[in-house]
Amino acid sequence: MKNAKFYHAGCPVCVNAEKELVKYINPAEVDTEIVHLGEQQNRIQEAEEFGVNSVPALVLDDQVFHINFGASLEEVKNG
Amino acid sequence: MKNAKFYHAGCPVCVNAEKELVKYINPAEVDTEIVHLGEQQNRIQEAEEFGVNSVPALVLDDQVFHINFGASLEEVKNG
Repeated sequence: MKNAKFYHAGCPVCVNAEKELVKYINPAEVDTEIVHLGEQQNRIQEAEEFGVNSVPALVLDDQVFHINFGASLEEVKNG
Repeated sequence: MKNAKFYHAGCPVCVNAEKELVKYINPAEVDTEIVHLGEQQNRIQEAEEFGVNSVPALVLDDQVFHINFGASLEEVKNG
């Protein structure tokens, strides 16, 4: 089983990526955690360490996939 | 069953997205066609009509998800 983290900030682009793409990731192969960085600012550093620059982003098996562009991580930090 | 198209051009970023993300899309829910626009230039217009600006991009249920950035569609046109 692979692990994935979907980092978002509740933005429209984020919500769309979650509802229209991330939900189709095969749960039999990938365990996907949804992380709202606006609500869990203490996990922004973790996202940065994976190489996340903007949200929404999916980290799957330590690889970062930026999916469209909702907001930069700097914007998320500043609320 | 949903239909998806994964447009790429054989670039390293494209290959990575295909092997590390697209392959985890649930085949029980989504039928994903892989389209190499470098080899099928006659389908570039179709991609443009979906709103694809760069590759790799996944069109799922008529929504475009640009996944990281490999090359612009203009670059693909120019080989």
